[in-house]
Amino acid sequence: MSRPSLSRYLPILGWARQYDGETATKDAVAAVIVTVMLVPQSLAYALLAGLPAEMGLYASIVPLVAYAIFGTSRALAVGPVAVVSLMTAAAIGQLGLTEAADIALAAVTLAFISGVFLTLLGVLKLGFLANFLSHPVIAGFITASGVLIAASQLKHIFGIKAEGHTLVSLGLSLAEHIDQTNPITLAIGVGATAFLFWVRKGLKPLLRRAGLGPHLADVLAKAGPVAAVVVTTLLAWGFDLGAQGVRLVGEIPTGLPPLSAPSFDIGMWQTLLLPAVLISIIGFVESVSVAQTLAAKRRQRIDPDQELIGLGTSNIGSALSGGFPVTGGFSRSVVNFDAGAATPAAGAFTAIGIGLATLVLTPLLAYLPNATLAATIIVAVLGLVDLSILKKTWAYSMVDFIAVTATIVLTLLVGVEVGVSAGVMLSIFLHLYKTSKPHVAEVGLVPGTQHFRNVKRHKVETIPGVLTLRVDESLYFVNARFLEDHVLGRVAECDNLRHVVLMCPAVNEIDMSALETLEELNRRLSELGIALHLTEVKGPVMDRLQRSHFLHELSGQVFLAQYDAWCALQADLKTAATAPLQNEGLVAE
Amino acid sequence: MSRPSLSRYLPILGWARQYDGETATKDAVAAVIVTVMLVPQSLAYALLAGLPAEMGLYASIVPLVAYAIFGTSRALAVGPVAVVSLMTAAAIGQLGLTEAADIALAAVTLAFISGVFLTLLGVLKLGFLANFLSHPVIAGFITASGVLIAASQLKHIFGIKAEGHTLVSLGLSLAEHIDQTNPITLAIGVGATAFLFWVRKGLKPLLRRAGLGPHLADVLAKAGPVAAVVVTTLLAWGFDLGAQGVRLVGEIPTGLPPLSAPSFDIGMWQTLLLPAVLISIIGFVESVSVAQTLAAKRRQRIDPDQELIGLGTSNIGSALSGGFPVTGGFSRSVVNFDAGAATPAAGAFTAIGIGLATLVLTPLLAYLPNATLAATIIVAVLGLVDLSILKKTWAYSMVDFIAVTATIVLTLLVGVEVGVSAGVMLSIFLHLYKTSKPHVAEVGLVPGTQHFRNVKRHKVETIPGVLTLRVDESLYFVNARFLEDHVLGRVAECDNLRHVVLMCPAVNEIDMSALETLEELNRRLSELGIALHLTEVKGPVMDRLQRSHFLHELSGQVFLAQYDAWCALQADLKTAATAPLQNEGLVAE
Repeated sequence: MSRPSLSRYLPILGWARQYDGETATKDAVAAVIVTVMLVPQSLAYALLAGLPAEMGLYASIVPLVAYAIFGTSRALAVGPVAVVSLMTAAAIGQLGLTEAADIALAAVTLAFISGVFLTLLGVLKLGFLANFLSHPVIAGFITASGVLIAASQLKHIFGIKAEGHTLVSLGLSLAEHIDQTNPITLAIGVGATAFLFWVRKGLKPLLRRAGLGPHLADVLAKAGPVAAVVVTTLLAWGFDLGAQGVRLVGEIPTGLPPLSAPSFDIGMWQTLLLPAVLISIIGFVESVSVAQTLAAKRRQRIDPDQELIGLGTSNIGSALSGGFPVTGGFSRSVVNFDAGAATPAAGAFTAIGIGLATLVLTPLLAYLPNATLAATIIVAVLGLVDLSILKKTWAYSMVDFIAVTATIVLTLLVGVEVGVSAGVMLSIFLHLYKTSKPHVAEVGLVPGTQHFRNVKRHKVETIPGVLTLRVDESLYFVNARFLEDHVLGRVAECDNLRHVVLMCPAVNEIDMSALETLEELNRRLSELGIALHLTEVKGPVMDRLQRSHFLHELSGQVFLAQYDAWCALQADLKTAATAPLQNEGLVAE
Repeated sequence: MSRPSLSRYLPILGWARQYDGETATKDAVAAVIVTVMLVPQSLAYALLAGLPAEMGLYASIVPLVAYAIFGTSRALAVGPVAVVSLMTAAAIGQLGLTEAADIALAAVTLAFISGVFLTLLGVLKLGFLANFLSHPVIAGFITASGVLIAASQLKHIFGIKAEGHTLVSLGLSLAEHIDQTNPITLAIGVGATAFLFWVRKGLKPLLRRAGLGPHLADVLAKAGPVAAVVVTTLLAWGFDLGAQGVRLVGEIPTGLPPLSAPSFDIGMWQTLLLPAVLISIIGFVESVSVAQTLAAKRRQRIDPDQELIGLGTSNIGSALSGGFPVTGGFSRSVVNFDAGAATPAAGAFTAIGIGLATLVLTPLLAYLPNATLAATIIVAVLGLVDLSILKKTWAYSMVDFIAVTATIVLTLLVGVEVGVSAGVMLSIFLHLYKTSKPHVAEVGLVPGTQHFRNVKRHKVETIPGVLTLRVDESLYFVNARFLEDHVLGRVAECDNLRHVVLMCPAVNEIDMSALETLEELNRRLSELGIALHLTEVKGPVMDRLQRSHFLHELSGQVFLAQYDAWCALQADLKTAATAPLQNEGLVAE
């Protein structure tokens, strides 16, 4: 990094200096569009998280300013998102709280823990930890979360009560209360859902045919939820639907976010710690992949470790201003990008827009039906559901298929935390399991070349009395014992063996356990009168072997190239045919 | 396996058929020697586990018979061992029990859970799980356990009370009670310890000089504890030392082991489950390495999965006959082997010997001072302490050094379970971490050969316009993102690049996450007008790539050998110098 260290931690110093009127106009236009989109979304995700609607607005103000200062993506729009809101609901559900004030405090605390954790990871440059989530596990988790979220919103569509954080418990609870369905709520919910699906699928082509540009058509189509919100709010107000049992958002306090502080109750922290870690990592992975995709389109780069700090401070900001966990959202970031946001200032302008909404719009939102918000969530998250990952992994990799299937099934049936944790642990375990029984191929020379390939796959030449094995894995504690057993097993099958050659181009590491195994193997082969040779040992591996005693004990030699070993051993065996074998002559320096 | 399946599970069927008088004599002689050694050891390890002395004898009868039937090693002697007894004490300590009967029941339950777990692993052929313990972690754990065990026995040497399962708590507790030291107990303890050290270090050379054979000298030296037991018991009886505050073993019930049953209390199982799993795995690893070492000396083989069943049934047997967790012990197995044990029947004969001891010897053992037993434990376990692993790993592998240091420090300061769990998790994490930033070398042709090596380490030729990178790691989710960033970073440093070649002899796997990364890399490079080629892709990896769309999308070609790519691209660039580049001509089928 040649940049000065202050702007490393404060990316705002990088872009604010060249900030001018033209850029400001671009950012402001983008901010207006994102604000319009974000108001209903914020309310909806607060509802999904089981929190009062205003907390959604609060979570969309200070976090955006914090990200504008500390974040590195020029187009990322942070705020409440669907999957993180679902995980928030599940985490808070574990506390078994009933008082609204306690639930809000728990949400603030969750955002705070998550923010501190993310910031710490960023400062310690531990962003690579997110790589422990494999692509299929993420894809499976997002898909299963989408299904769970949609299911959790059905109660609002039917206007009934239902509880549960798994597909089964939600389904049972819905079935139990389905007879209390409110027909007007159902009409609004189904109507809004159908309208929003049509806006998504049908409106955009219509607008394009009417002559609008693709970007404008896209932005207008994304404003569909606003139209649904306005129309249903007016209906609810005009016909006084609240009196007829339609659940409305109700009174929202007018005013800017309050100052708030997390709880420091140890019991609460113990319960929320693991969920906060999972929320942080899932939120980071989602956010960083959106940011990277958008940055690549404009040939910009983002810095994952600084992104952790950006998201961490956003969450701390959310906790200090009455919000709940936030991260970079996919659809709003795309809208921000398409609408021309040039710098993170667009986020700060959006924060001003939402701030104005809390001052001006809140009285109007009291008549907004919950069913409309549920409809916007359902339509949004069904876009996340994509089962093609199952087909892809089935065709390509059984290990990935098992991990993704376990993630989906456990997320749906046991819950989000168990689902994603099991996915991570299973992919690590299966990876280690695969390396525990590595592929070991006997190889021979491809005629006319210096290239060696598997005797079972290619027509190759071999030398009688020499067994050449290519080990297709790093040698470390998990497979150390396997190697010894395998080589001795192969040796037992061969008669008149004088040399065993381990070809090591794929051995990227030999750890202490494997070194001890090689020493033992060398000893056992020596007792049988067989010399052990190594070839094509990589530089870093050789460096380490030279620091051990192994090379002094080795009965054979280390060859740079397999072809060198081929020539030397062939010559040696020809000599041996007339004279006794002189292994000593081959011992490496 | 060509053996019939019944003798696969009942190895006794293999050797019992050829059993004859000569073999029986050998086994009986070995059994007598092991019995003499095992009586004081069994009592001592029961004391270490915090259990009544007779449980040590009970744990040395039925388990030996069970192992004789189900085990595959011909020389392994099972029974209570030091490390497992220490872990038993720590596990039972967590339950906070005070009644002797409850503590005994917990020990029986622990043996039962451990036995069921081991048997299950064996039936499911999951013996490879033991490989997750790396050699350095085991060595560190055994060393730290030795120190802890010795420290835990000091209270018996001083004749005081002390509690604790960590070095600090033990030390503090000893310091607190040191003023209550019983001088006679201290004299016996120090005397016995000094005597046993002399037997170990000085007696054997003396006997050798007196003309005894090395084996006999060894066996006699190992009988030292018996002498210490006899002498101090006679002293305690003759001078009625019990009346002077010297703690004695006290009355031991005479008779064969009672039938016993584990508790099925859910709370107890929850607490004991993790300790039982750790005890099982540590015990298995220790036992199997002893069994393999001895088997190799006589060119026999053991079957690790059947060993699990052997140890599992031994522990179940222990649980049903009033014992506690057992495993194969190092020193007694060596004695058994050296004394000429030819089949597992030697174990069954030893069981008869210990059974006779419970009938005949128990009244005599009432006067045995605890300090003598503590002395035998201290002298035995200090042989386990070996800090050379720290030096070895420091020189050879920093990752192994970190894992072994953490294991030792945490075992001593936090406890056995945390120590060994942290060691396992840390070694897995550090292994994954190392693979998360793989070594990627730019390679060139070693002149006069077809061999390619690192441009920084060897004098090699390269082609301008072609960047050849050898990836020294399997590509999977943990390093997928690194690869993309790294290759694009390298590409950005080169001017006029036309071809990027990824040389894959060390890529043993490309999982779904890495495949998606390669697709993305191919797309990005195409946008820059650079073709991506792969060479030396291994058979199993290529098989899977052919099931994906990647090879159709690939802008370049897949070459069998790196040298083929070298020739083809050199020719292509020569043509390109006179005509526009025709990448299409290079696309693989």
